[in-house]
Amino acid sequence: MRLRNVRGADKVIQNCLYVIKDIESYKGKYKTIFNNENPLHIEIGMGKGNFIIGMAKQNPDINFIGIEKYDSVLVRALEKLDEEIPNLRFIRMDATEIENVFYKEINTIYLNFSDPWPKNRHKHRRLTSSTFLKRYDNLFKEEKNIIMKTDNRKLFEFSIISFVEYGYKIDDISLDMYSDDIKDNVQTEYEKKFHDKGFPIYKIIVKK
Amino acid sequence: MRLRNVRGADKVIQNCLYVIKDIESYKGKYKTIFNNENPLHIEIGMGKGNFIIGMAKQNPDINFIGIEKYDSVLVRALEKLDEEIPNLRFIRMDATEIENVFYKEINTIYLNFSDPWPKNRHKHRRLTSSTFLKRYDNLFKEEKNIIMKTDNRKLFEFSIISFVEYGYKIDDISLDMYSDDIKDNVQTEYEKKFHDKGFPIYKIIVKK
Repeated sequence: MRLRNVRGADKVIQNCLYVIKDIESYKGKYKTIFNNENPLHIEIGMGKGNFIIGMAKQNPDINFIGIEKYDSVLVRALEKLDEEIPNLRFIRMDATEIENVFYKEINTIYLNFSDPWPKNRHKHRRLTSSTFLKRYDNLFKEEKNIIMKTDNRKLFEFSIISFVEYGYKIDDISLDMYSDDIKDNVQTEYEKKFHDKGFPIYKIIVKK
Repeated sequence: MRLRNVRGADKVIQNCLYVIKDIESYKGKYKTIFNNENPLHIEIGMGKGNFIIGMAKQNPDINFIGIEKYDSVLVRALEKLDEEIPNLRFIRMDATEIENVFYKEINTIYLNFSDPWPKNRHKHRRLTSSTFLKRYDNLFKEEKNIIMKTDNRKLFEFSIISFVEYGYKIDDISLDMYSDDIKDNVQTEYEKKFHDKGFPIYKIIVKK
């Protein structure tokens, strides 16, 4: 994503109650934020937030936390909040830190249109590499669920192999999501853009 | 494949030395036919033979057996033999019988553009269903290798899930083979037709 510096983004984020601060203090007890026992789903690399905001509105009985690395991107998501959404929060952090933040409390991780890191020497930075799958292991409460969407063929091929190598089973896969039944699908900003251009959108659901 | 009755096909097949008869008598000792210790690769559903004939010419140190159910299709492959190919043979049989024919002697199975059997109630007839993967188990000598190509998205999605569920690991996968490096690729008749029409060709290599 092309990054534009957004003036005052850090201030907006600091003052927004939707953004969780002091994140490590909630490790293992994020449910206290939502004050209920509902399952917790997170999106790593939520970008401008269309997906996670839409999912939270569509599924009031699931708690959602969107994670984004950049202030200037996260602030765009905050601008989209047009109503109170009690089951939604955000965290500004780098995904490599995720093990320090959550512990045995997540039900599902969403990875949408993640950075493909196309160069082979950067493959460990891909969010579906074994390096990251290992980081996710201790985040899940019980069953491990990962749901991924992307338009990037090479990243998708890599991810299928990586999930399976790591012991995940494939619950569902589509090599052209928009040719299948996609009711309840919530688009990301990227997804809309690439689908409108006519590219196939790939989706996989894995469990362990 | 649309089947046309070919007059005299049964006679041609009966007289052709490339076609192995009395197949069950060779079970576990097909290497005696080739009189060497080279690895044995088979193609189940070889159709008109372009792939297996091309592969045999390209790889003289591998033995190939093409399997086809219909006389009228197999005879078309025989018509393509324009030179002596000592490492190639054919068998006319139904794939459901395969366990009675081979035993611990195969290195690689090719499944090219197999019948997708699109109806859910026919899914056990798909050559990548668990029903068939179970039949293949005792065919392999040591490592199990299956290489599949298809243009059928739904069959490919089903097959990925089925292979993984059955314990296969994915060695390589391409969701658009012709956009990758495909030197040494041998086309099947179907592959040429569907690639020429602009459809993506899917390929997966699995091991167990």
